[in-house]
Amino acid sequence: MPPAFKTVAVVGKSDAANLPEVLDQLAGLLHRRGIAVAMDKATAGASRTKPYTACELAELPRRADLCIVVGGDGTLISSARLMAERGVPLVGVNLGRLGFLTDIPADGLESAIESVLDGEFISEQRTLLAGAVKREGKTLFSAMAMNDVVVSRGAVGSMIEFAVTVDGEFIYTLRADGLIVATPTGSTAYALSAGGPILHPALQAIALVPISPHTLSNRPVAIRSTSKVEITLVRGEGARANFDVQAHFELEHGDVVTVSASPKPATLLHPKGYRYFSMLRQKLRWTERAS
Amino acid sequence: MPPAFKTVAVVGKSDAANLPEVLDQLAGLLHRRGIAVAMDKATAGASRTKPYTACELAELPRRADLCIVVGGDGTLISSARLMAERGVPLVGVNLGRLGFLTDIPADGLESAIESVLDGEFISEQRTLLAGAVKREGKTLFSAMAMNDVVVSRGAVGSMIEFAVTVDGEFIYTLRADGLIVATPTGSTAYALSAGGPILHPALQAIALVPISPHTLSNRPVAIRSTSKVEITLVRGEGARANFDVQAHFELEHGDVVTVSASPKPATLLHPKGYRYFSMLRQKLRWTERAS
Amino acid sequence: MPPAFKTVAVVGKSDAANLPEVLDQLAGLLHRRGIAVAMDKATAGASRTKPYTACELAELPRRADLCIVVGGDGTLISSARLMAERGVPLVGVNLGRLGFLTDIPADGLESAIESVLDGEFISEQRTLLAGAVKREGKTLFSAMAMNDVVVSRGAVGSMIEFAVTVDGEFIYTLRADGLIVATPTGSTAYALSAGGPILHPALQAIALVPISPHTLSNRPVAIRSTSKVEITLVRGEGARANFDVQAHFELEHGDVVTVSASPKPATLLHPKGYRYFSMLRQKLRWTERAS
Amino acid sequence: MPPAFKTVAVVGKSDAANLPEVLDQLAGLLHRRGIAVAMDKATAGASRTKPYTACELAELPRRADLCIVVGGDGTLISSARLMAERGVPLVGVNLGRLGFLTDIPADGLESAIESVLDGEFISEQRTLLAGAVKREGKTLFSAMAMNDVVVSRGAVGSMIEFAVTVDGEFIYTLRADGLIVATPTGSTAYALSAGGPILHPALQAIALVPISPHTLSNRPVAIRSTSKVEITLVRGEGARANFDVQAHFELEHGDVVTVSASPKPATLLHPKGYRYFSMLRQKLRWTERAS
Repeated sequence: MPPAFKTVAVVGKSDAANLPEVLDQLAGLLHRRGIAVAMDKATAGASRTKPYTACELAELPRRADLCIVVGGDGTLISSARLMAERGVPLVGVNLGRLGFLTDIPADGLESAIESVLDGEFISEQRTLLAGAVKREGKTLFSAMAMNDVVVSRGAVGSMIEFAVTVDGEFIYTLRADGLIVATPTGSTAYALSAGGPILHPALQAIALVPISPHTLSNRPVAIRSTSKVEITLVRGEGARANFDVQAHFELEHGDVVTVSASPKPATLLHPKGYRYFSMLRQKLRWTERAS
Repeated sequence: MPPAFKTVAVVGKSDAANLPEVLDQLAGLLHRRGIAVAMDKATAGASRTKPYTACELAELPRRADLCIVVGGDGTLISSARLMAERGVPLVGVNLGRLGFLTDIPADGLESAIESVLDGEFISEQRTLLAGAVKREGKTLFSAMAMNDVVVSRGAVGSMIEFAVTVDGEFIYTLRADGLIVATPTGSTAYALSAGGPILHPALQAIALVPISPHTLSNRPVAIRSTSKVEITLVRGEGARANFDVQAHFELEHGDVVTVSASPKPATLLHPKGYRYFSMLRQKLRWTERAS
Repeated sequence: MPPAFKTVAVVGKSDAANLPEVLDQLAGLLHRRGIAVAMDKATAGASRTKPYTACELAELPRRADLCIVVGGDGTLISSARLMAERGVPLVGVNLGRLGFLTDIPADGLESAIESVLDGEFISEQRTLLAGAVKREGKTLFSAMAMNDVVVSRGAVGSMIEFAVTVDGEFIYTLRADGLIVATPTGSTAYALSAGGPILHPALQAIALVPISPHTLSNRPVAIRSTSKVEITLVRGEGARANFDVQAHFELEHGDVVTVSASPKPATLLHPKGYRYFSMLRQKLRWTERAS
Repeated sequence: MPPAFKTVAVVGKSDAANLPEVLDQLAGLLHRRGIAVAMDKATAGASRTKPYTACELAELPRRADLCIVVGGDGTLISSARLMAERGVPLVGVNLGRLGFLTDIPADGLESAIESVLDGEFISEQRTLLAGAVKREGKTLFSAMAMNDVVVSRGAVGSMIEFAVTVDGEFIYTLRADGLIVATPTGSTAYALSAGGPILHPALQAIALVPISPHTLSNRPVAIRSTSKVEITLVRGEGARANFDVQAHFELEHGDVVTVSASPKPATLLHPKGYRYFSMLRQKLRWTERAS
């Protein structure tokens, strides 16, 4: 028996002109099925149809049992970090440009969402990272990341230097622009630009991807997602720890950035027929066949 | 209680002048402990001390409960494919140059081997690949690989073209010099030269690493080691499937190369204190600390 | 005053269905302008309008003062090697798919060719390489290359090993799948797939691009095109020297492959408005503007 | 006839304990040959032997006809920018660790410097870049660079976006961490870490090396050093232009960073026997021969 979604959160964020229309379409669809709609205040403001509930974004996870995100991957990622806490699954709708995560096109919205609501979906779990910054043993900052935790140099000056351990085992001291600790989800984002491998989302792995390392043999390393990574800043003014490029913390020498998989992954729902590699092929413009 | 090794196979292969001496030293050590020594005929020929048993290499796995390999990584790899069939663990001794797999230096041989025989070791399982070539549904060739299965172009002509699926899902059609399907063990061999990531041996993963792909976004992909990879040759004369660079098979258009993890991994034993990243740091000359 | 083209060679090679039609169109256009048309026998066979002269391909350079190539980059490259000997300029027409060199689309053929014949063109010189294989001081083989001279491993076995000098100065001994010596023209072909840089055609340079080198710091090197490169095969069975993937020679240990720029470059004519980077942007799908 | 060096500037900067001793040794050697020694105040402070002249660093170029730099590549680079203005050649001495530019080891100092003073040297010209930042047509900042001019993102936020032209021709709009415009000298510094090619110093070229570009086909491009590069910031807060990592300027949207080769290159003198590739081989740990 399919899950019964009683309240669905809708989070929409986009500069696209058709955002209000798409929100309207979604609200109508949910209403016709007798499903309550909850929106954060910003989305409610953009929507022509007013929702049953308009509340703070942070309130949505405990009110909804499904979250539909309308917009880009960035919006899905920030929603997913929130929803993962309570295990609320997410569906991603894009407004014209296929995302790595927002895979339902707005113009095929109705049938795709209907299918998901009917229980006709592929469910997929995505690893989240729990990151923290420690100074002299005290945790000063902590945040979740769906893509990556990045330690990188500041605006001024050159490379920074840091020591990396995995499960307490010393790996290397690195002089580089930084280090990206990426989930499989993040492996197709910043880490890919920096030369990292693509990690299939079903692989329980984390990639350590050096950014412009001084030593050319410092190549990307993939480790188990159960591992605990520690990065200690050795040298470099203005270095920062950065979480999904959405939160950051300025580091001092000796600060330790710890990263490990969160016990609570995010759950994505895709319409039946979704294929990870098909999406990737389209995003990366891989060759379909002989030319 | 440590395992009791009753018969130990010794396989030595090297051009190094000190091979006979090291084999002698090993045989003496084993003899003093009352352990029977089995050697393949070539090793027995090179050894000054004659073993209890000299037999075909292929006979060793069912006679021994431990295999000590003296030489380079290539020798360990070919021995490991044999030994994995019956679960016989291996220990690797190098003759002067640290290997990725042959991590015990000859000059520290005695204490390291004594420790292993006393049960003081770290045991590690390494994925093997089972590869096969199929033509019109019939299996024409099959072989195991500890490093990689490689489909690559022949000597003449340019790129080849092939289609790749993972668990039946189409990934891409690739025009390239070839594709490396590598285990974590193989990820620091040929695949690393071709731009692949380093996969930690404990990660249950396989890397798909294109060799000089025509489309620049065809980057390395890491998938679960439980996946089944199929590579179908579409175009290119003289293409070959190659297994650990030790066996190869010439392909025709339409041939399918299948690769999946073998149910029987190889077992490596390392002396206590062994650290994967420490070995890697030395092999790849990673920076130890600030300079 | 524009050059007066009296005889124009037309070389067409393609599987495309519209080849005869395009040749016909070209021949008609040239005829109307009172220009004699010369074709190689294969092109004449494919053409509906018979040319004034049908001869061997190798005869064309001394009969024509312009060569129009219809087809892909491969056809342009082989024609250019021929034409360069006598300084005959070339124009490239593609049959539906933009080439790096065949930049005039068939559907804009008439106006583009008319302009070129009117002297409204951008003339560009492209370096050619003169390569040779020497054994014990004797030259066994020599060939020109517009893209690259490649020394690479054979079908069987693993990496080859070779020593490289530039102007007599030793650079390195390389263990790799091979080495690409590429012109700026070749820098966007095979060398790009192997990780080489793009060299602007106006840069008098040659790129040395290792193919999957064992040592990760063996990165591509660009040198002056007046330099003389020598590659000596040290180890590896079945290695080959390959010239534009259109001629090859099997190497023995100790063989020396020499490469230097030919004193006679190829001359390409482009319609006014042609821009190198515009073509590159389209071929490599670089971003045009913000998204 | 060798040049007669009458006044030699000595610039020393290092944390190394033997700096005073090496300066002393140099000053003694120059004194014995009747050559006047000029030092900047910091070097004079570190030197045990006091120089004939101690002045501001910026004064040295017009007082000296040779500059000996003792320390690392960074010190040589900042001295070279100064000296190039008046064509004063430089010699680089390292204090224990071979530099790309400071190629004379302190322990072979005397014979190497004596040779240079005797006119026994190899002279080499290195391109410098003249960079500037323009806002609404007005030049706000300008600086020279021996290694590179870098436009890069600030500490906060993600990729920046900028448009690049070469000699007025539009190349691309790039979304990336930044762009490195590097001389051949700089091609073995930061640009190499970011994936750029090595440019031989005799090649009159500039490399454009994207840092972690969003579009994977945005590969390094080498152009003629006579070209003029313009980089216009389109998007990104806190972006900066950086000159040899020794000067920087914060950019606003619409700012244009211009880069072209300076008409006045730096001149390096090396002892006879110096070989560029030999130095590179040692620095990058390239294989000397078969293993």
